[in-house]
Amino acid sequence: MEAGILRNEIKNRLPSSRYEHVLRVAETAKKLANQYGLSEDKAEQAALFHDIAKFMEPAQMREIIEHENDANDCSLFNFHHELWHAAAGKLIVRDEFGVGDADILNAIRYHTTGRIGMSPLEKLIYIADLIEPGREFPGIEELRDTQGKTVDDLMKDCVSHSILYLIRKQAAVHPDSINCYNEHIQLN
Amino acid sequence: MEAGILRNEIKNRLPSSRYEHVLRVAETAKKLANQYGLSEDKAEQAALFHDIAKFMEPAQMREIIEHENDANDCSLFNFHHELWHAAAGKLIVRDEFGVGDADILNAIRYHTTGRIGMSPLEKLIYIADLIEPGREFPGIEELRDTQGKTVDDLMKDCVSHSILYLIRKQAAVHPDSINCYNEHIQLN
Repeated sequence: MEAGILRNEIKNRLPSSRYEHVLRVAETAKKLANQYGLSEDKAEQAALFHDIAKFMEPAQMREIIEHENDANDCSLFNFHHELWHAAAGKLIVRDEFGVGDADILNAIRYHTTGRIGMSPLEKLIYIADLIEPGREFPGIEELRDTQGKTVDDLMKDCVSHSILYLIRKQAAVHPDSINCYNEHIQLN
Repeated sequence: MEAGILRNEIKNRLPSSRYEHVLRVAETAKKLANQYGLSEDKAEQAALFHDIAKFMEPAQMREIIEHENDANDCSLFNFHHELWHAAAGKLIVRDEFGVGDADILNAIRYHTTGRIGMSPLEKLIYIADLIEPGREFPGIEELRDTQGKTVDDLMKDCVSHSILYLIRKQAAVHPDSINCYNEHIQLN
């Protein structure tokens, strides 16, 4: 799909503030892809798509996910519907937009929770989503500082931050996130 | 086993500072049992036994755990051997001391990680281990304040504290701990 048309499709499905976030994630993802030797095109595509289902009704997301009936996707029903858009988004991008690239689809699927065995592109989207220039929270500057760090270093810091944030606000943490965290502290 | 003989057995297996900790956990556990209407005897027994394997050699703990071949016990091998003493301790208490009470055995087994579906006694030992009067860390006073709180409230705060502590020092978190945390934030 031509980039302009794709952007328009995404714009139509999101409130403008969220769409602006998506554009910033895409810019950040491209920059990181360039820095770490990944495909800028793939990074941009995955980033543009990552929140496509973010404003769907929970009931509609549930229907899409239940229809696919993937066990790990369905495990999301035990968690807040805030997390469902990652799985629903992946299925929409595959089925409505005809994207067949498994790496792009997985980057959409795991941008909220992370998981064990993420690809570099999956990590890059997770990171870009957290550190895009519109984000503001204590510690963000440290997360944004990529100097001398590998993608795994950045991912470790980002997933650690996300879990700490969730526990401080007493929100649920998906096991995929803890598995991702455990893997990354052992990689270093 | 008579209480004095039991204490002696435990004393012989631990350095004195750890034995003193065990005695403080037993006192705290009895107090909590009294406060929350559980058996003081069981609480004391479980507390006295909880760290019995704490100073065993990792190789010896591994042997005991592998011999039993319980899948969740063996999952501990993916984590620091610091965690193994809970599973090894349970098996020693069952096999060397002839304790058959499943609740006491589970309280020993899950005092480091927690788990989903803990019994009140299991929670009580987990809590007593963390808040006994010898512990000193930022936030301990809040954890010790039981006024108006249920065992579940205390457990929620204690498991949250433990996970935050581990992530801040970039140590691994067992999935049982996250499952326990997720369960407790939903209980309230």
